[in-house]
Amino acid sequence: MAGSTFGTLFKITTWGESHGKAIGVVVDGCPAGLALCEEDIQLYLNRRKPGQSRFTTARSEADQVQILSGVFQGRTTGTPISLLVPNQDQRSRDYGDLAACYRPGHADYTYDQKYGFRDYRGGGRSSGRETIGRVAAGAIACRLLSQLGITLNAYTWSIGAVTCSSYDQDEIFRNPLYMPDADAARRAQELLQGCMSRCDSAGGVIECRAQGLPAGLGDPVFDKLDARLGQAIFSIGAVKGVEIGDGFGAALSCGTANNDDFRVNLKGQVEKCSNHAGGILGGISDGSTLILRAAVKPTPSVAADQPTVTSDGQEKMLSIKGRHDPVIVPRAVVVVEAMTALVLADALLTGMGARMEYLEKIWKK
Amino acid sequence: MAGSTFGTLFKITTWGESHGKAIGVVVDGCPAGLALCEEDIQLYLNRRKPGQSRFTTARSEADQVQILSGVFQGRTTGTPISLLVPNQDQRSRDYGDLAACYRPGHADYTYDQKYGFRDYRGGGRSSGRETIGRVAAGAIACRLLSQLGITLNAYTWSIGAVTCSSYDQDEIFRNPLYMPDADAARRAQELLQGCMSRCDSAGGVIECRAQGLPAGLGDPVFDKLDARLGQAIFSIGAVKGVEIGDGFGAALSCGTANNDDFRVNLKGQVEKCSNHAGGILGGISDGSTLILRAAVKPTPSVAADQPTVTSDGQEKMLSIKGRHDPVIVPRAVVVVEAMTALVLADALLTGMGARMEYLEKIWKK
Amino acid sequence: MAGSTFGTLFKITTWGESHGKAIGVVVDGCPAGLALCEEDIQLYLNRRKPGQSRFTTARSEADQVQILSGVFQGRTTGTPISLLVPNQDQRSRDYGDLAACYRPGHADYTYDQKYGFRDYRGGGRSSGRETIGRVAAGAIACRLLSQLGITLNAYTWSIGAVTCSSYDQDEIFRNPLYMPDADAARRAQELLQGCMSRCDSAGGVIECRAQGLPAGLGDPVFDKLDARLGQAIFSIGAVKGVEIGDGFGAALSCGTANNDDFRVNLKGQVEKCSNHAGGILGGISDGSTLILRAAVKPTPSVAADQPTVTSDGQEKMLSIKGRHDPVIVPRAVVVVEAMTALVLADALLTGMGARMEYLEKIWKK
Amino acid sequence: MAGSTFGTLFKITTWGESHGKAIGVVVDGCPAGLALCEEDIQLYLNRRKPGQSRFTTARSEADQVQILSGVFQGRTTGTPISLLVPNQDQRSRDYGDLAACYRPGHADYTYDQKYGFRDYRGGGRSSGRETIGRVAAGAIACRLLSQLGITLNAYTWSIGAVTCSSYDQDEIFRNPLYMPDADAARRAQELLQGCMSRCDSAGGVIECRAQGLPAGLGDPVFDKLDARLGQAIFSIGAVKGVEIGDGFGAALSCGTANNDDFRVNLKGQVEKCSNHAGGILGGISDGSTLILRAAVKPTPSVAADQPTVTSDGQEKMLSIKGRHDPVIVPRAVVVVEAMTALVLADALLTGMGARMEYLEKIWKK
Repeated sequence: MAGSTFGTLFKITTWGESHGKAIGVVVDGCPAGLALCEEDIQLYLNRRKPGQSRFTTARSEADQVQILSGVFQGRTTGTPISLLVPNQDQRSRDYGDLAACYRPGHADYTYDQKYGFRDYRGGGRSSGRETIGRVAAGAIACRLLSQLGITLNAYTWSIGAVTCSSYDQDEIFRNPLYMPDADAARRAQELLQGCMSRCDSAGGVIECRAQGLPAGLGDPVFDKLDARLGQAIFSIGAVKGVEIGDGFGAALSCGTANNDDFRVNLKGQVEKCSNHAGGILGGISDGSTLILRAAVKPTPSVAADQPTVTSDGQEKMLSIKGRHDPVIVPRAVVVVEAMTALVLADALLTGMGARMEYLEKIWKK
Repeated sequence: MAGSTFGTLFKITTWGESHGKAIGVVVDGCPAGLALCEEDIQLYLNRRKPGQSRFTTARSEADQVQILSGVFQGRTTGTPISLLVPNQDQRSRDYGDLAACYRPGHADYTYDQKYGFRDYRGGGRSSGRETIGRVAAGAIACRLLSQLGITLNAYTWSIGAVTCSSYDQDEIFRNPLYMPDADAARRAQELLQGCMSRCDSAGGVIECRAQGLPAGLGDPVFDKLDARLGQAIFSIGAVKGVEIGDGFGAALSCGTANNDDFRVNLKGQVEKCSNHAGGILGGISDGSTLILRAAVKPTPSVAADQPTVTSDGQEKMLSIKGRHDPVIVPRAVVVVEAMTALVLADALLTGMGARMEYLEKIWKK
Repeated sequence: MAGSTFGTLFKITTWGESHGKAIGVVVDGCPAGLALCEEDIQLYLNRRKPGQSRFTTARSEADQVQILSGVFQGRTTGTPISLLVPNQDQRSRDYGDLAACYRPGHADYTYDQKYGFRDYRGGGRSSGRETIGRVAAGAIACRLLSQLGITLNAYTWSIGAVTCSSYDQDEIFRNPLYMPDADAARRAQELLQGCMSRCDSAGGVIECRAQGLPAGLGDPVFDKLDARLGQAIFSIGAVKGVEIGDGFGAALSCGTANNDDFRVNLKGQVEKCSNHAGGILGGISDGSTLILRAAVKPTPSVAADQPTVTSDGQEKMLSIKGRHDPVIVPRAVVVVEAMTALVLADALLTGMGARMEYLEKIWKK
Repeated sequence: MAGSTFGTLFKITTWGESHGKAIGVVVDGCPAGLALCEEDIQLYLNRRKPGQSRFTTARSEADQVQILSGVFQGRTTGTPISLLVPNQDQRSRDYGDLAACYRPGHADYTYDQKYGFRDYRGGGRSSGRETIGRVAAGAIACRLLSQLGITLNAYTWSIGAVTCSSYDQDEIFRNPLYMPDADAARRAQELLQGCMSRCDSAGGVIECRAQGLPAGLGDPVFDKLDARLGQAIFSIGAVKGVEIGDGFGAALSCGTANNDDFRVNLKGQVEKCSNHAGGILGGISDGSTLILRAAVKPTPSVAADQPTVTSDGQEKMLSIKGRHDPVIVPRAVVVVEAMTALVLADALLTGMGARMEYLEKIWKK
C-alpha cells in the first residue's frame, strides 16, 4: 500500500531515502496565486539541518531545495509543486553490522518483516531525512496560512525532566534547543552533555501553537481537526504521544474546571474564558489558540552496547558508531510545525464547502 | 466536506444524530465469507449502552441493531453491510436553554460557526450516540481479527487520580467501570459518588491491547500504524490525548532504557526483550503486544452553574439538567476497542500488497 | 476492497441488494443550509420506478424514500444525510435455476469468482435496484446545482437504430421512453414491441446536458471533469461506452473543424463559436453546455433460450422467466442525470480552493 | 484541489509542466521485490518520444528517466519510487501571441478561468509532456503485471476514416503509426500527408487489450473495473470517447446477440463463447481478454488561421507556428497502455482482500 501521501485537497506526497540520490515532495492542490520562491522554503529546511545553531553559519551547500514545477513568475500556478533536495552523501560504503543487524528502537526489523528485505543504508526510508519533504511542504502551507492571518509557533517544551517554566517567544530562536525559557535551555544543555558522556540519549516534548485560526475548521466524526492532527503528529518518527490542550491533564480534572466558559468580549464577540480545550471543541476549531504537544522518544542510535539479533537469527552486541544527535527534539520542532500547518491548510480548503452561502459567494454569477 | 468515512479498504461510513430517526453505519470492503449475525454486533453495542452494569439485565429493547444488507446465508458477501439502530427518543420537546445556549465543553458553538446553524436536539451529530456506528462496525472488525488469531482487550486504566495498580483480565467485566483492578474500581466508584454529589464530573484514561498481531502491519510515513491509530482514537469525542507504548513517559526516559533489545526465543524466533515501544517500530507492527492509551476529559454536561453565552450574544448562567453520566470513560472503553479494531482490519487488508510474493500467492495461476 | 463510495467532498456511499431488507445511501459533505424534504428526492426516484409512464399514476407505496438523518427544520445540517428505501419484495422463494446458473450478460459468474459465493436473489448487489441510492443522492446534488443556477437534462437519444433527429425539451416527459423527438419515440416503441415478441431486448444511447456551469470546474490530469464523469457514467451497470461532446465523431474530424473558435459576445464575454468539445477543455469546464452520451447494452435478461453453465460446471440451456424490461435505457436516464449531478456538485466543492483570492473571500476576517 | 494522484494502493502522483525544469512521477505502493532498472522504464518512454519511428535511432539524450528512490540492489523496496525526466528546452523565449491568446481546442482559456492566470509556456501543465509521468509509472505497472502472466497490447485502430481491417500483432511495431494492419498504416500515412499539406490535423482511435487477467478484478458499484478504466482513459488529454468491448455497437445490438454465452472448455473451465462484453461483467473481470477503445481528437495546434480572443478580450486571428504532430494518436498509444496497466495493477492489489480465505493465506500463522 501507499502511505506517503497526506491531505485531501492540500495533498502532499513525499519520497526518498537516506542514501538515495535525493529526497523530495510533491505538493498538489495549493491554490494558485500564492507568492513563493525557494528561499521561502529554505528558511524552514535550515531549521531542521544537522549541526545547526543560531550562532553558526548554516552550511550553505547542504539540503538546498529546488522548485522543479508549479511556480511561474513567482506565484503558484495551482498545479503540483515538485520540490527536490539532493542527498550529499551517496557514497557506497561498508555498512557491516548495520546491514546485518536489527538496531533496537529502529525500523530495521519491521521493514524486513513487512517487505522481505530493506534498504539498510542509513535507515533508508525510515531515516529522519524523510522529514525533509514534510518540512518543505509545510513551509508552503505556512505561507498560505500567514496570508490569511494565521501564525504557527513550535518550540521545545521539555528535554528529559527539564521543563520550561516560562514562555518568552523571542528566546526560542536564541538557544540551539528552541526552548522559550533561557534557564531551562541552559539546564537542558547540561543534561544533554551528561547523556553524551554516558553514550546515551534523551527525549522531550514539543509544543505547537496556532493563532488567528477562524472558528469552524475541522469536520465531525473521523476528520475532526484533532483527529487529523493526531495522524499528522503521530506520523513523525519517534513521536509516542500527542495531546491537545490539557491532554492527559484533562483526565485528572473535573468537568467544572475543565470546561471553558463562554463570555462576550468588549468587541461583542463570543470567546472562551479559558482554553483547556486547546482551541478545538467537538473536533472543530473554536477561534482560540490551537495548542498541541508531542512526546518524542530518546534517539535510538546510542553508542552504548545493546543486545540485538542479526537478520539470520544470531544474537550479538551492537554499538552504533558515528555522530548521532543525543536528542531528536530540537530538529523535530520544525517538523511538528510543518505537519500542523499542513493539516490546517487542508482544513481551510475542505471547509470552504461547509455552507451553501459560501458556495454562492464563489460560484453564483 | 465529508468526515464520516474512515478506512482505505475496510471502509466505514457512519451517520445519524442523537434525536433523529436512527443511527447507523455502512461497512464496505469487509472480505466475503466471514460468519456474521446481528447478535455478534449486539454484544458490542450492549457494552456502550446507558445504564449498563454487569449486575443488571440490559434493557432488551434499546439500541437493537439490524443488518440491512451485505450478509447472505449467515456470511458476509463482500458488499456493503448496512447496520441500523433506531432511536427510541425522537419526541419533540422543549429544548429551551439548550437550543439557544452554547454549552461549555460541547460542540454547540463550533457547529454554529461551521455550518451557520445546528441540530440542537441532544447535541445532534456531536452526541455520544454517534459512537453507535463505530462500535457496530468495530464488532465486525473484531470478528475478522479474531478469525486470524488477533484479540483486543480494552479497559479503564484510571478515573481521576485513581489508577489501576494491578491487572486481572477477568476483573474487567466484573465491575461496572471495566477496570482490571478490583480495588481501584471500588475507589473510583467512591470518587464518582463524590463528583455526583458536587454536581461535577470526572475524566480518566482508557488502555487497549491487541495480541496476536503479525509483524509488518502499517505503512511508512503518513500511514504509520500509530498515525492511523492516532486519527482513530482522537476522532472519539472527549479524547484529549493518545499514547503508544510508554507514550509521554518515553520523553522522560533515555535511549538505553527506552530501546527494546532483540533476542532469539526458544522457538528460534526474533522477539523484543521489553515493549516500551508498544508494539510498533517505525510505524509498523513488530509482532509484540500493541498498547495504546487515550485520555478522556470529564463529562462536560454538569448540573453546576456555568457562565455561557446565547446564540444571539447574551451572557447567561446555565445548569444542565437531566441524567448525565458523571464520567464518560466506562462507556467509551468499547469505542476505543472498536476504533483500534477498525485500524487493524484495514491494515491487514492494505498490507496484503506489500510483497510481490504475496501477489503471486493469490493471483498466480 | 470497498467500491461503494464516490466523491471527494460531496461523498456518497450506497448499500443494499435486490432482495435484502432495504436499499440506501449516505450523502456526506452536502453543504449546510440547503432546503430539502423527502418529496424533493421522491420526484427523482419516481422517474426510475418500474412500470412508469407519465400517463399512469405511480404506484404510491413503492420505492418510498425516508430521510433518516442530516436534515433539521427543513434544511441540510452539513452532517451525513441517510436515505433509505425499503424493499417490498423480500419473500423467500425458490430461485432454482438462477441460484445454480450463470446468467449470460450478468455478473453471476464474476461475483462467484471474486467472492467465492454470491447472493443470487435477483442479482443481489449487481441488481439494477442498486441505482436507487445513486438517484436519491443525485436528487440532492441536483437541488444544490439548481440553487447555483445549474440545470441538468437527460433523455434517451436512441433505442436500437432509432435515433432522435429533433430536440423538443417538452416532449421528453410526454413519452414513456423520455425521448425529445415524438416521432422517434413512436418508432422506438414499435421496435420494442418487436423485441418483446421475439423474447429479445434492445439497447440505446442516453444523452445528458448541463447548463449554467461556471468555467473552471474540474482539475488537471487525473481528476479532469471528463475523467470523473467517465468513472461516474461507466459505473452504471450496462453502460459500455461514454462520449463527451463529439466523442467518437471527433476521431473522424480534422483539427480545423473540431476546434471551437473563440469570440467576444455582445455582453463582452468570451465564448466559443461552436461546442464540439462538449463544454470541457483540458479537463476543465469552459462555461458552455456540458454534453455527454452513454451507450447502454440490451437488457441481458431475455426469455429466449441461452446456453450457459451451472456453478458446478455443467452446461445447460437457460430461459429467464418473469417480467423484464425489454430495454434498460428509459429507466437509466435519471441515473445518468444523477451521476452527472454528483460529479458536478463535487467539482463545485473541490474547486473552491483553486485560487488564493477565493480563500481570502471566505476566511479572511 | 489536487488532481495529480491516481490509484488506491498502487498510487501515482505526477508533476511538471512543458517548460519547467523537469517532469516526473512518484509511484507509491508498488510491492517490494520487483526487479526494476531505468532501462525497463526507458523502453516505454521511447515509445512516446517525438520524432520516433522504428526506422530511426531514438535521440539518445532526450527524455532520459532517472530513478531517484525506491529501488535498492535492483529491486523495488516497497517505498515510493521517484522518477524524473529533465526537460531539455527551458529557454526563456518570446511566447508572443501564445501568452496572450486562447488557442482553440487547448486549455488556455479554462486554466485562466480556473486559476486566474496560467503558465503559458508550451501549455504548461496541460501539455502533452504531462504524459511522461504516466508512461514511466505505467512501465512499472506493466512489469508487475507481466510477473503475474498478464500482458498488455495497445495499438492504433484508426486514423481519420482509415480503419484497420486485419490484426497482425508483429506489424504494430513495424510502422510508425503502431497499426496492426500494414495496408491501413500505408493509407493512414497518406491521409496524414494530406492533412499536413492543408495545415490541418487528424484524430483516430486507439485500442488496448489485456490478456491473462484473472477473473474477479474490480469492485461493484463505483469502482467497477470499467469505471476505473473510464476515469483513467478519459484523463488522457484529447480523449473524447471510451468504449469497453462492443461499446456503442452494443447499443445497436439485441440481447440474444450481445450476451456472451457460457460453456465448459476442454480443460473443464468455464469460459465465454464470445466476448462482446470486452472481458468485464458487472464491473468485474471475467477472465477473457479485456478490450477497450479510446477516441482521440485531432491535434488542436494547426497552422491554419483560426479566430480567437486574447486574454484582455480582443478578437484576433491565430496561426500556430512551429512543428506539431499532425496526429496525436501514435504517441498516445503507449499512454493508453500505461493507464490501463495502472488500473489493473491497482485492482490486483485492492482485490487481495476480497475473501477471508485470501487473508488467511497471507496472515494466518
